[in-house]
Amino acid sequence: MTTPLRLGIAGLGTVGVGIVKIVQKHATLLETRAGRPIVISAVSARSKDKDRGVDLSGYAWENDPVDLAKRDDIDLFIEVMGGHEGPAKDATIAAINAGKDVVSANKALLAIHGQALAESAEMAGRVIRFEAAVAGGIPVVKALTEGLAGNGISRVMGVMNGSCNYILTRMENAGLSYEAVFEEANNLGYLEADPELDVGGIDAGHKLAILAAIAFGTQVDFEAVELEGIGAVTIEDIHQAADMGYKIKLLGVAQMTGRGLEQRMSPCLVPDTSPLGQLEGGTNMVVLEGDAVGQIVLRGPGAGEGPTASAVMGDVMDIARGLRMSTFGQPAKTLRNARAARAAVSAPYYLRMQLVDKPGALAKVAHALSEAGISIDRMRQYGHQDTAAPVLIVTHKTTRSALDEAIGEFEKTGVVSGTPVAIRIEQI
Amino acid sequence: MTTPLRLGIAGLGTVGVGIVKIVQKHATLLETRAGRPIVISAVSARSKDKDRGVDLSGYAWENDPVDLAKRDDIDLFIEVMGGHEGPAKDATIAAINAGKDVVSANKALLAIHGQALAESAEMAGRVIRFEAAVAGGIPVVKALTEGLAGNGISRVMGVMNGSCNYILTRMENAGLSYEAVFEEANNLGYLEADPELDVGGIDAGHKLAILAAIAFGTQVDFEAVELEGIGAVTIEDIHQAADMGYKIKLLGVAQMTGRGLEQRMSPCLVPDTSPLGQLEGGTNMVVLEGDAVGQIVLRGPGAGEGPTASAVMGDVMDIARGLRMSTFGQPAKTLRNARAARAAVSAPYYLRMQLVDKPGALAKVAHALSEAGISIDRMRQYGHQDTAAPVLIVTHKTTRSALDEAIGEFEKTGVVSGTPVAIRIEQI
Repeated sequence: MTTPLRLGIAGLGTVGVGIVKIVQKHATLLETRAGRPIVISAVSARSKDKDRGVDLSGYAWENDPVDLAKRDDIDLFIEVMGGHEGPAKDATIAAINAGKDVVSANKALLAIHGQALAESAEMAGRVIRFEAAVAGGIPVVKALTEGLAGNGISRVMGVMNGSCNYILTRMENAGLSYEAVFEEANNLGYLEADPELDVGGIDAGHKLAILAAIAFGTQVDFEAVELEGIGAVTIEDIHQAADMGYKIKLLGVAQMTGRGLEQRMSPCLVPDTSPLGQLEGGTNMVVLEGDAVGQIVLRGPGAGEGPTASAVMGDVMDIARGLRMSTFGQPAKTLRNARAARAAVSAPYYLRMQLVDKPGALAKVAHALSEAGISIDRMRQYGHQDTAAPVLIVTHKTTRSALDEAIGEFEKTGVVSGTPVAIRIEQI
Repeated sequence: MTTPLRLGIAGLGTVGVGIVKIVQKHATLLETRAGRPIVISAVSARSKDKDRGVDLSGYAWENDPVDLAKRDDIDLFIEVMGGHEGPAKDATIAAINAGKDVVSANKALLAIHGQALAESAEMAGRVIRFEAAVAGGIPVVKALTEGLAGNGISRVMGVMNGSCNYILTRMENAGLSYEAVFEEANNLGYLEADPELDVGGIDAGHKLAILAAIAFGTQVDFEAVELEGIGAVTIEDIHQAADMGYKIKLLGVAQMTGRGLEQRMSPCLVPDTSPLGQLEGGTNMVVLEGDAVGQIVLRGPGAGEGPTASAVMGDVMDIARGLRMSTFGQPAKTLRNARAARAAVSAPYYLRMQLVDKPGALAKVAHALSEAGISIDRMRQYGHQDTAAPVLIVTHKTTRSALDEAIGEFEKTGVVSGTPVAIRIEQI
């Protein structure tokens, strides 16, 4: 095979430019490794005139990514625009219909339309690859789909949103409030245009849903991910967790249970000596557990020009080398529609609330927990501040639904002020 | 493709049995993922009658792995016997000549005969894969060869011998001598039949040489690996290192320098807060550094039935899915014969010696270091024990050759008793 692989790149933001740089800088290396030249034929973006710091003069230009996708002089369509509707979706479908393979960095598109896209691509004999959509530069899609292909996967976990991990570690290291660090991160450009995608756990939830589909042979089901963002985590929670030997992380967990597929993305307490607990700043970490291999931990940069472009190029090189695999590691038609199991796996919980200054308040809390079948492992009540006293409870293993029942009861009896914070203590 | 992929397994030790178990347990899962059945046609081992806890009655038996390799009813030859000469080598060559693809777990074979085998296989249009040869269950060969294929690789590092890491962490945690823990590990069956393969760094050196070939596009050159085992590491060194915030690890480092390819496998001090420093017990960790991705860290079990079989099955699944790649990620004929650069990269060193009880002894040591161009960062002399006083020195950055020169000088002037211990402080 000495036919060049001809790329069309839709999107010339950070990632698109990163891809152009790699193709230009490493032309010889890529050709040696792939056994054929990797060339860019055409590109597309919103503004043609913008200076992006790379020479695009050798490539044809398209204003519309759909036109790019249909060009006869491209074999592979690279979608690095983002957004799960509109041009990204239209152009991806157009590329498949025009007989092109697709490499995408678009987690939202894959998480929401992955099943339909995979089915279309496989009917057309086309390949969709998306390493860059999950955990940036970490080759975790490859590790899971290919490296662990001989394993029954039992659990996939990870810290997959660098911005949230940055905020949580910065709060702890600088002793700052969530609001202060959020502001800071936003000003530094660390957050999405809609920050809720990051701090609400949505972006990380997309990634988890994609990994779960591969791991368990199920249709991607982002709607079934139990999502909880980091907005309610306070610096007090972080300090209390540290006192008990834990860190708070926005942790995604997907596992198949007797009741169905559980997918959660929520703040969790993890042991501070565990690899996940030791993860600082914007780095991502994914833990894969299989019945033969045991536990594999992958760590690396979760975002940025170089890491994301590196992941895209890994996919490009696979296609150049002739690897043609089903989108999610098995034919899309064979992916099962798993029943979603909410909160199927029980765990101890960390519970923080403000008790109002009334006789018997603590007794009522303890009673509500007991009624919900929850036993208390540890409890601390602090001195009153104004009219309320902070109370910390660590429960024994319970389910989130039992806990929510108890919390509802606290609120009904009027003994707590504000909303109690409940954070799962993850067994890892 | 619904043609089955037919396997012949040579070697029914721990790993071979692990492969049989996976193929039997996950027949349906493997077929769904690969798009074709994975079946075992024939096996071979030394003793047919031994009870291995798995049902082998459905497979043809060969006493000679060479005969197995040539069978018409196998497509893929799996070599999990071990040993770099004799049956393992003969059977691998026979398999290639008979038109079979090969999956091997044999690090020694690949490290010593990798170039010749890759050339033969590529001439014959056959594939050799060897994920299980490096770092057990961690899919690091795949991550490096495929996932990071868009990167210029700058450095590959790792703790790749679980037995040595077990010994070093056990010494520290239990406060035991090297000799005591070696004995213990040997009795527990943690060491190779020839323990020097483990503690001498040879096994880990094989793995490093294989990774270096892929990373830098060079011919595997195990002979060029600077090897130093862990036999000279004492519990005092471990305690002193801990006092300074370091752990001692048997660390492999391969990097391309201006003077050529440096490959080292030796005890090193690494910061105790780094992922490598935090690695306990038999776990392996590999760090990959690329110009686009930055740093990726992979961690997992380095040995054992399940993890090694998982790695073999990852390769089997790739071949079943139609991935056909050059052995070392680029055609064997294009692999360069890199110049070996010994000790090209300078570093601070930890130095421990016994000073004899003579006036001016310390001055002579300081003078010898100074003459060799080595400056001292920190020094401690302890009280005399019998006739010698332990002295600890941390140098500023220097080369190993300058250090060896200074050590030679200490010995000539007769001011040290025994052989000084020098351990590199690795910048990671």
